[in-house]
Amino acid sequence: AGISEGNVGQGVVDFPVAVVLPAAGSGERMGLSTPKQFCTFLNRPLISFTIETFERIPWIETIVVVVAKESHDQMLHIIDRFHHTKVKVVEGGATRHRSIFNGLQAFSESMEGPSPLPRPKVVIIHDAVRPFVEEDFLLKITLAAKEQGASGAIRPLVSTVIATTSEGYLDHSLERTKYRASEMPQGFLYDIIFQAYQRCSEFDFEFGTECLHLALQYSGTNAKLIEGPQTLWKVTYKRDLAAAECVIKETLSLSACLISGTMAETVELASKLQKNLAAHSMTLDLHPFVKGNDELLSKTRNFIQISARRESLSEITEMVKVLEEMNHALLYPVVIIWVHLCMSEEPFHRQNPDELSSIMDISMKAKQRNILLYGIEVIHSKIPELWERSVERLSEITAALIRDRNPAFTGQLLQA
Amino acid sequence: AGISEGNVGQGVVDFPVAVVLPAAGSGERMGLSTPKQFCTFLNRPLISFTIETFERIPWIETIVVVVAKESHDQMLHIIDRFHHTKVKVVEGGATRHRSIFNGLQAFSESMEGPSPLPRPKVVIIHDAVRPFVEEDFLLKITLAAKEQGASGAIRPLVSTVIATTSEGYLDHSLERTKYRASEMPQGFLYDIIFQAYQRCSEFDFEFGTECLHLALQYSGTNAKLIEGPQTLWKVTYKRDLAAAECVIKETLSLSACLISGTMAETVELASKLQKNLAAHSMTLDLHPFVKGNDELLSKTRNFIQISARRESLSEITEMVKVLEEMNHALLYPVVIIWVHLCMSEEPFHRQNPDELSSIMDISMKAKQRNILLYGIEVIHSKIPELWERSVERLSEITAALIRDRNPAFTGQLLQA
Ligand SMILES: [Mg+2]
Ligand SMILES: [Mg+2]
Repeated sequence: AGISEGNVGQGVVDFPVAVVLPAAGSGERMGLSTPKQFCTFLNRPLISFTIETFERIPWIETIVVVVAKESHDQMLHIIDRFHHTKVKVVEGGATRHRSIFNGLQAFSESMEGPSPLPRPKVVIIHDAVRPFVEEDFLLKITLAAKEQGASGAIRPLVSTVIATTSEGYLDHSLERTKYRASEMPQGFLYDIIFQAYQRCSEFDFEFGTECLHLALQYSGTNAKLIEGPQTLWKVTYKRDLAAAECVIKETLSLSACLISGTMAETVELASKLQKNLAAHSMTLDLHPFVKGNDELLSKTRNFIQISARRESLSEITEMVKVLEEMNHALLYPVVIIWVHLCMSEEPFHRQNPDELSSIMDISMKAKQRNILLYGIEVIHSKIPELWERSVERLSEITAALIRDRNPAFTGQLLQA
Repeated sequence: AGISEGNVGQGVVDFPVAVVLPAAGSGERMGLSTPKQFCTFLNRPLISFTIETFERIPWIETIVVVVAKESHDQMLHIIDRFHHTKVKVVEGGATRHRSIFNGLQAFSESMEGPSPLPRPKVVIIHDAVRPFVEEDFLLKITLAAKEQGASGAIRPLVSTVIATTSEGYLDHSLERTKYRASEMPQGFLYDIIFQAYQRCSEFDFEFGTECLHLALQYSGTNAKLIEGPQTLWKVTYKRDLAAAECVIKETLSLSACLISGTMAETVELASKLQKNLAAHSMTLDLHPFVKGNDELLSKTRNFIQISARRESLSEITEMVKVLEEMNHALLYPVVIIWVHLCMSEEPFHRQNPDELSSIMDISMKAKQRNILLYGIEVIHSKIPELWERSVERLSEITAALIRDRNPAFTGQLLQA
């Protein structure tokens, strides 16, 4: 799921490109009841992250998602909920190859039923469960497919491959340097891969696994192989879901907008926090205020507002409202941390019991829109060691809240 | 890293078994400065989890860990800090095969320097970065090695394997069903693998990757291949560390000890919590109190104490002290959640400001011993909807604290 914008292929790709995403698998390998492409993290199913990656690439026109009949409604709901706009849903077949063929047929005149989608020059076949494919690699695959007829991602083998005897003993091991793992994405001239599927046998449909093999055998096209990055990995097991969530959370936590106010003490605290979070690999952009700066709001996934005035909670309410109206947290949860600097040794929550429950109320409403609000209270101690310790703890809690994006802790007023 | 006890092989393995763990790699593939076997999660380096897995198997006598010269002191420090007792550290060579051979030589008379370790009948070779190997699988590998001379774990191929032309085009793809990925662990009669390493060529030492191949070529032994579980996976990339941490955290979060006290209200809350956490796949064992029950304490990774009396915080202090004396959190962080049930609508933290800072103080001391203490306050509202909502939130926060084991939030008094 690419989070940054890109226009790598603009101008270079001057021909129509479509994507087929087979997603009809049952995911039994994972040991989960839900097929893995529909497993959810950060409030969104995996397949939506993959779709998003392709959707934000301007030179990709259409994404055909092939799902099992029983997942059809669920898929339509996902498209609606996450505002996907380039997707066409097609019903899958009993095997992976049949599903891909069904996807390709959506562009074909020969099909019965609804009128076909415009036929692409190049079609990219990818897995719904490889969300981290990047635009520049897709561009390589697309251009090689245009040039050579077929192309595919490869990776070095991670294990030695061995041939076994029928009794389960070692027969021989393959020389690792001569072989590669065939991965996804793969690209094809549409006519080449469509022809291959039209010509291939029932045996291929049942037992085949490799589109590149079909292009070679039935269209005489030797695919160009391109070494891909390790980010092409496939979410296969339950542990991979945790890894995928972690990769996305890390990307979301690289930077934050730090709203310092204009008071000397809050500005000083902001600059200390900025320095400490650099050690957590987090870049904080300082702004005295953000009100009215919708462009900044729309680019930011994490906000830290430092204030010594308790009225600042109403500014948070205002910010939540603006973010909600922008639908800014549609795809990724947004974090807002309200840091209250208490200028007296008496903590805020004891002076203002009602505000405590009001943080909880604001946060509960915001959470429904995927906006995660947390509070942290720092007492501006006159004793230097206590003050340093509080700033240290504030930094640690802030980094943890942003990285974890845990909805269970929203509305809390934590003590730094 | 097995957390449960086992004695699967006791009695069956009546011959000496040792392990060689090559851990001299630099981990460059991962894109990290630290070699991956030394990367830390849950306050412990990965290699210590792997060592622990072997150390708790009673029929394994010795674990030879082969590390790079520059990691030697670090390895000794890890052994000391985590109380490993079966480990012998050996210096690695320039390649994986040289490192394994160095490890095997630790059992050989022919070696110069210190007197050798007792020669095992069977030696298991494993990777330091595969922490999840289980005793029953190790037993299969060991018995097959004793019987056949050599044995190895295999897994189905996850990707199609293809041969490439020298120009980078597809030559042909292998038929997936005829091949397997060779994984670890592998087992050998010591004499067979030692002889193979003594006879093999410089080329093998430099470019070889497969111990099973050496046993075949230089000792004429065809290894028995045994399909292993997916838990044998190898921590290779940064994302795998996140996955490994997640697997361990999940195992640690399966159950908790819930200390209910004897008051009607706390017992009622305990039983509601027990029911709600079952929905989070967490089993809570109810106990009115645990004081003096050291056996229970020593078996438990998570404690939830519910109390309506503020003096109960001193019981927490007492429990922390006992756990510290038992060194119970040496290998895995222990979580204690102190749930304070406020019988008035006025929350505890407003009545007892000093106790708030005392939770923070106790938790800071406890954290140094890997004990993570958190507080949650629940107001016993007379309004049924409010009470239900609080119990719901208590359940959610409790589950999240146990699952995440986040040290940044220790000492907080959260509001349910
Ligand atoms: Mg979109
Ligand atoms: Mg031990």
